[in-house]
Amino acid sequence: MKNICSILIALVFVLMSCKENSPNSDTSSSLDTPLIEANDIERIEPSNWWVGFKGDSLQLLVKHPNISDYKPSIAYSGVSIKKVSKGNNSNNYLFIDLNISKTTSAGRFNIKFKNDKGQELVATYELKERVKPAEDFVGFDSSDAIYLITPDRFVNGIATNDTPLGVEGQPALLEQTIDRTDDYARHGGDIAGVTKHLDYIYDLGFTAVWPQPLLTNDMKKGSYHGYAVTDLYEIDPRFGTLGEYQDLSAKLREKGMKLIMDQVANHCGLYHWWMKDLPFKDWVNLQENFEENKANWNNSYTINSNHRRTTNQDIYASEADKNGMSQGWFVATMPDLNQRNPFMAKYIIQNSIWWIETVQLGGIRQDTYPYPDKDFMSDWAGAIMTEYPNFSIVGEEWSYNPLLIGYWQEGAHNKDGYDSNLRSTMDFAMQNLVVEGIKEKESWDEGLVKIYEGLANDFHYPSPKDIMVFSDNHDMSRIFTQLDGDIANTKMAMATYATIPRIMQMYYGTEILMNDFAKPGDHGLIRTDFPGGWESDAVNAFTGEGLTDAQKDMQSFIKKLFNYRKNSKAIHEGKTTHFAPFAGTYFMYRTLGDETVVLILNKNEDIITIDLNYQKEMGLKGKTLKNIITGETIKWGDVMDLKSKGVTVLTTKL
Amino acid sequence: MKNICSILIALVFVLMSCKENSPNSDTSSSLDTPLIEANDIERIEPSNWWVGFKGDSLQLLVKHPNISDYKPSIAYSGVSIKKVSKGNNSNNYLFIDLNISKTTSAGRFNIKFKNDKGQELVATYELKERVKPAEDFVGFDSSDAIYLITPDRFVNGIATNDTPLGVEGQPALLEQTIDRTDDYARHGGDIAGVTKHLDYIYDLGFTAVWPQPLLTNDMKKGSYHGYAVTDLYEIDPRFGTLGEYQDLSAKLREKGMKLIMDQVANHCGLYHWWMKDLPFKDWVNLQENFEENKANWNNSYTINSNHRRTTNQDIYASEADKNGMSQGWFVATMPDLNQRNPFMAKYIIQNSIWWIETVQLGGIRQDTYPYPDKDFMSDWAGAIMTEYPNFSIVGEEWSYNPLLIGYWQEGAHNKDGYDSNLRSTMDFAMQNLVVEGIKEKESWDEGLVKIYEGLANDFHYPSPKDIMVFSDNHDMSRIFTQLDGDIANTKMAMATYATIPRIMQMYYGTEILMNDFAKPGDHGLIRTDFPGGWESDAVNAFTGEGLTDAQKDMQSFIKKLFNYRKNSKAIHEGKTTHFAPFAGTYFMYRTLGDETVVLILNKNEDIITIDLNYQKEMGLKGKTLKNIITGETIKWGDVMDLKSKGVTVLTTKL
Repeated sequence: MKNICSILIALVFVLMSCKENSPNSDTSSSLDTPLIEANDIERIEPSNWWVGFKGDSLQLLVKHPNISDYKPSIAYSGVSIKKVSKGNNSNNYLFIDLNISKTTSAGRFNIKFKNDKGQELVATYELKERVKPAEDFVGFDSSDAIYLITPDRFVNGIATNDTPLGVEGQPALLEQTIDRTDDYARHGGDIAGVTKHLDYIYDLGFTAVWPQPLLTNDMKKGSYHGYAVTDLYEIDPRFGTLGEYQDLSAKLREKGMKLIMDQVANHCGLYHWWMKDLPFKDWVNLQENFEENKANWNNSYTINSNHRRTTNQDIYASEADKNGMSQGWFVATMPDLNQRNPFMAKYIIQNSIWWIETVQLGGIRQDTYPYPDKDFMSDWAGAIMTEYPNFSIVGEEWSYNPLLIGYWQEGAHNKDGYDSNLRSTMDFAMQNLVVEGIKEKESWDEGLVKIYEGLANDFHYPSPKDIMVFSDNHDMSRIFTQLDGDIANTKMAMATYATIPRIMQMYYGTEILMNDFAKPGDHGLIRTDFPGGWESDAVNAFTGEGLTDAQKDMQSFIKKLFNYRKNSKAIHEGKTTHFAPFAGTYFMYRTLGDETVVLILNKNEDIITIDLNYQKEMGLKGKTLKNIITGETIKWGDVMDLKSKGVTVLTTKL
Repeated sequence: MKNICSILIALVFVLMSCKENSPNSDTSSSLDTPLIEANDIERIEPSNWWVGFKGDSLQLLVKHPNISDYKPSIAYSGVSIKKVSKGNNSNNYLFIDLNISKTTSAGRFNIKFKNDKGQELVATYELKERVKPAEDFVGFDSSDAIYLITPDRFVNGIATNDTPLGVEGQPALLEQTIDRTDDYARHGGDIAGVTKHLDYIYDLGFTAVWPQPLLTNDMKKGSYHGYAVTDLYEIDPRFGTLGEYQDLSAKLREKGMKLIMDQVANHCGLYHWWMKDLPFKDWVNLQENFEENKANWNNSYTINSNHRRTTNQDIYASEADKNGMSQGWFVATMPDLNQRNPFMAKYIIQNSIWWIETVQLGGIRQDTYPYPDKDFMSDWAGAIMTEYPNFSIVGEEWSYNPLLIGYWQEGAHNKDGYDSNLRSTMDFAMQNLVVEGIKEKESWDEGLVKIYEGLANDFHYPSPKDIMVFSDNHDMSRIFTQLDGDIANTKMAMATYATIPRIMQMYYGTEILMNDFAKPGDHGLIRTDFPGGWESDAVNAFTGEGLTDAQKDMQSFIKKLFNYRKNSKAIHEGKTTHFAPFAGTYFMYRTLGDETVVLILNKNEDIITIDLNYQKEMGLKGKTLKNIITGETIKWGDVMDLKSKGVTVLTTKL
């Protein structure tokens, strides 16, 4: 009996494996025949794939005139066509679901397309070897400090790629001018410029770089920011080439640093190539409104998101508001991708994996996290984290509400059962509370207590140290502006962000007091050119030439702060202990093994003597500590004199 | 073998049951002998108990000179002494742990105390029959609207109990004067006064009454508020008698209403009887500081709580701060009870049960919830809810942070594993957001959106409808003051509180626009005498005599609002749906079966036409609805004209 069972089971397996290879395989081809490469098809995406993923399926988007009349076939060992689907809005698309068995070898093969009239089109496709084990794609974590860059505004590394017409073989792009006097125009910064100055970023003590999106934004204006992607598989030629992007990643890895890619699953740019010929009737949300109005596209009222992000959680939200949030467009120039269409969903997931593998990313920052379909976002993050278990993704939810910040982090026990698979969320709450806490006059419930009680909310988060805090970013006033140009306050804030249990991120140029006092909050102004990034610049922050003393001092402060942070296990993963603010001071401790780091914020202009015995549980009495900025050492006694307003960061690591 | 085992097991049971009845039982007494009642002991608490509880243990506190030299005994079937304990700070206490078996009959028996010198003291103790099944002690829930009363300031029902000297048999109390011109003195209101005017409260549409604490506050001054209890088993003679309290409860029950007792587990009054002779060295927190200083008791610095309530949750809180919060005294005139002393813990739990059973309470409001030891509070609430599964307790955590409000509600999945056993918490967050939402100028993130997003936080709570919201209370400005004397705004707020998914509570006199404009937030002023509560009053809010038109109008508004609420299943337990505010309006729906209640807040001074099609999912088109205040009916169409600023509450129940 047992033997008969075994035989039957074996038979079933044989039949199943036969089935796997049979449909659509072109048995007339021989694997030994030399491959005649061809490229008859307008567009196949992803343009290549890899063998050796945990997931064995791949869906190709094929775009070509009347391609839906053709039937594809593949003859390659281990690769089979599971299913072929057509769009319901255009004849120019095919979606081919492939199965790539675990034993498939890397290599190139042809996909043949035949129609009823006997016409044939051929495209060569490649399955590559993966460059390193999945586990070696290590994402950012609380040991990282991230330098956020607006690539158009950092360094113009290659002048010849500045205007679209200058790039050989590229069609002319819609925005064709460079104008450094216009804050909303292109300024010419690029990938090569970032690569050229990695030493500077490394020396500042940062361990990861997050450039804003580098993919093609072929938009009529304002394309510099990168969030209106018009080709999800192409580096914007004004920023450079895929090779330059890979080179940036390689050079970062050489320094032990990580490259974080800024991705946008929610929307694309209005001039994305598919907007002229949408494959499905529901490829983008509110597609019918767009189709009706596209001849004269300016009707933002009928299409914009209501931006009521709480509808994602609100158990009382009306269907009208939920749809208005999720399906409305972020702005009228950014079509809202419909991730509930399963072909769109696959397209976005594969696109993310393609970039991780192609560029060897060290993390993804996902834009406008609460706007796409939230179940899709969980699938998306889950798919990536399944393939790359040590990777990291941070999602942008612009909320000051810890309930929402916590909701999106994986491991949250949400009552609705939602699990985001998202390792990191952004901490707009603490960013803001540190600023308020430092700026406000001390009282029972204002001032430093905001920082104290803000951190107290950590009890709610699944993993506080995996949340990303930041001093500033491309959408908000520079921290120096937020703190009204007070340098002591700015140092207090920076040291707080850098030592609390979080991933830390700073915006480029904040180290030299870049600001937006002229028009606070103005996006173009916030994203000012980094001095020294252009040949003609009179001031050069890389060399220090032309910087004011205050700028040099802050640059040095940041350098010391983040270089200490880089090697501080206590900051990366130590225990946190803090004391309720008293007498205008706040003490926070990070401790791991022998290392204790003490953050002391002091708002008193005049000397104040602090009784340290209240904090005796920290066990520092009699120990010598070093000021990580000045290098001075002090002996921890019964009292401490704080001489003037400002921050002191002490460490037991001498 | 099997038989031998059975015999052995049976033998063990016999031995165990023998053991249960053997120690300390006075086998020389006979149950048939008539009881000779005696009362040699200064104080035994609780003064009586009941048979038939789920818990079979009772701990008696016995206070008498040198009682620790005596050995107690009891001869009563089913009652045995499990353990006798002495205090470590006084010879004048014994704590007797009794076991009351399930089969014990109600009755009276003597406890005999003998010392080595052969001296004997006797006290008669009573175990009563319970008056009704435990399940019939039904607490308040979202069907209830609670009328909060400061008893000293509502109605002076019995003039003869006003001054302590006037009560026969009572020792003189420390505060001996009545002075209605002093907001912080006693004014003479009492329990009988509340009982006398239950019809008024009932007619207003309220279903429960919460008087501030009625227990003796024998304090030198400010004793009117009731939170400095000096005898946990005694009604303050200035408020009346236990009989009058029981009578209030009975009269409320006759009307289908509930009596909520305001209890204080955190602290007592400085002149509590035990403060002169503390049984244990750790009976109150920071007892050594008190003992050292009590001769000249004014040192609040060394003893006060730091009031940093977040230390209850904060995973980073220092031990110093946690102790400073939990063990520090609320104020220097209120000793902080040490619930970590197991005798104190039992005392408080038994005291609560004694009052529930003695007065047939319909709920407890527990003061300063985050201040006592939090594990004890969970035990306390758990013990009560085990005995009375349908009872309700609401805890006061004064926080605007939904994380903390949620933390204290039973069923919260707190990461630290804490489960409070507390059915209801107080919603200071929504109280405040409704006020801000109504007062603020409309903008993207201010105005009505505060109400909308405040309710959106409900996704976090274990049970939103079991949380208690309120318009105002004894510790904050009157709602009319909070809303700057704007009547339309006050009606908006009241209707919002009354229709959102919550238990609702209002402070006495708010229905006649009582306010504290003269000195906003002043506690004495907030707790102003209710007009008509004193014979000499020129204005009488019970009869309407002397009320202004505005006061009469608000009284009528409250009456209609709460009388509708009383019978509205949709408000009590219906589904909630709301729409993001638009054009200065906010629509919230409560729906159950055929009944739909629509709350419409409108901030526009001039007429505005609302397109109702956006809300078509509510299915009201073509239906007739009635305005619950004016009685007017309207037909729900495609649009609705809102004529002027204010609130509209519509119902499909005609």
